[in-house]
Amino acid sequence: MRIDVVTIFPEYLEPLNVSLVGKARARGQLDVHLHDLREWTTDIHRTVDDTPYGGGPGMVMKPEPWGAALDSVLAAGPEGEVPTLVVPTPSGVPFTQELAQELAGRPWLAFAPARYEGIDRRVIEEATTRMPVVEASIGDYVLAGGEVAVLVMVEAIARLLPGVLGNAESHRDDSFAPGAMADLLEGPVYTKPAEWRGRDVPEILLSGHHGKIAQWRREQAFARTLANRPDLVARWNRDAFTKKEREALSVLGLAWDEGRGRFLTMAEAVEE
Amino acid sequence: MRIDVVTIFPEYLEPLNVSLVGKARARGQLDVHLHDLREWTTDIHRTVDDTPYGGGPGMVMKPEPWGAALDSVLAAGPEGEVPTLVVPTPSGVPFTQELAQELAGRPWLAFAPARYEGIDRRVIEEATTRMPVVEASIGDYVLAGGEVAVLVMVEAIARLLPGVLGNAESHRDDSFAPGAMADLLEGPVYTKPAEWRGRDVPEILLSGHHGKIAQWRREQAFARTLANRPDLVARWNRDAFTKKEREALSVLGLAWDEGRGRFLTMAEAVEE
Repeated sequence: MRIDVVTIFPEYLEPLNVSLVGKARARGQLDVHLHDLREWTTDIHRTVDDTPYGGGPGMVMKPEPWGAALDSVLAAGPEGEVPTLVVPTPSGVPFTQELAQELAGRPWLAFAPARYEGIDRRVIEEATTRMPVVEASIGDYVLAGGEVAVLVMVEAIARLLPGVLGNAESHRDDSFAPGAMADLLEGPVYTKPAEWRGRDVPEILLSGHHGKIAQWRREQAFARTLANRPDLVARWNRDAFTKKEREALSVLGLAWDEGRGRFLTMAEAVEE
Repeated sequence: MRIDVVTIFPEYLEPLNVSLVGKARARGQLDVHLHDLREWTTDIHRTVDDTPYGGGPGMVMKPEPWGAALDSVLAAGPEGEVPTLVVPTPSGVPFTQELAQELAGRPWLAFAPARYEGIDRRVIEEATTRMPVVEASIGDYVLAGGEVAVLVMVEAIARLLPGVLGNAESHRDDSFAPGAMADLLEGPVYTKPAEWRGRDVPEILLSGHHGKIAQWRREQAFARTLANRPDLVARWNRDAFTKKEREALSVLGLAWDEGRGRFLTMAEAVEE
């Protein structure tokens, strides 16, 4: 996969040399190109921002440097190919594991992290006439700029590429991964020693009984999900539960709603 | 604010020297201490992980180095004070702007970013007997480690500290900030030139009519929110809307639900 990043803080992207992403680059699985947006400014101050039309606080990133930078990125890639442009912004669609998976299937991604109040809208509008554009938000909080969101997205995408993940890591039981643990948070994990500072590893994990261990892990995952992410309940698929689990959910007021075709969230169950 | 980070990849935290956070450190508003977890290993291989009890793929971070590292962090701080321990994990509560604001009010934060399948649970349990612990997730995607989540959290928290944000930036109209734009995504922004590559800035923004500009911006924010984040509708407060806006929402099927005391989401409106 080829990745281009245009930013006024290329040094912020240093972590792309470290750990999993760094190793993927060293092995040639990721071809990362960093570009300093200021290369495409034409004034002596290398200005990238100006005051917003219509007034208001903050500054807006000027269209000319971004337009020229994207022209240059497009021209640098393989003949006839265009990247998917990813613009991190709090106004975008949520960046989810599903979106990470979709983007991991693209051969070429270009990232346009903004600073200040964002990039002049016309840059994005013009880009959509030339390449696929995804505006995405990594979460409901405000950052100082899009660079750290690029680090998040590249890491989430890179680990899904074939051959990138080593033996020490694994996709299978990831929170948010599809399968038996879909939409369940992972429960606690333990390793040696069996006793540490007076605290024992739960006995069941030493039992060697795989079925019971799997069931215990599911119960822990339920407990963690209900405590920390009651919103995930609405995403649960009834078929992923045993009859006994469905009965238990019902005892907790988490009844299946035929009309809606899903479990009610805890908040809804209280409201009904 | 004092910040300690314990990690096996201190070099991943380099961006804390850049831009807003870097400047806050230079001005003495942030006192950041990075620690290499491997300093607290005792074997020649400096091992930080081992296989999980109960079986399964991946590795778990051993309790001894983490326990010793946290002991050391606690001992290094001001006499009698303890940090709030923040553990980035996909199993945590959502890291939101609200949580960022709460953490920005604490004088001392310690971050424990994990790799592999996570940290032996007993480390977190023991820590809760000694200091406040927050396990938080920056979003519904899987990362290779917690380091990038620390960068996200520190950036979101640091920009809320008094005096950190410069004139070029602003809190007021942030997506997710409280106020008139609460739970509305920010709409498009524009700056000079008025025409760029055949694309004009919307005329209204050049009109100088502040009331109309504010209303246009709200409409753009509605449009963006309904398109990209229909889930936010359920968070809207009826009192934040004009009568005309409430009527318009009703035309779109986004009716106020007396029983629930909130707007129905678009999905719910379809279901009812």
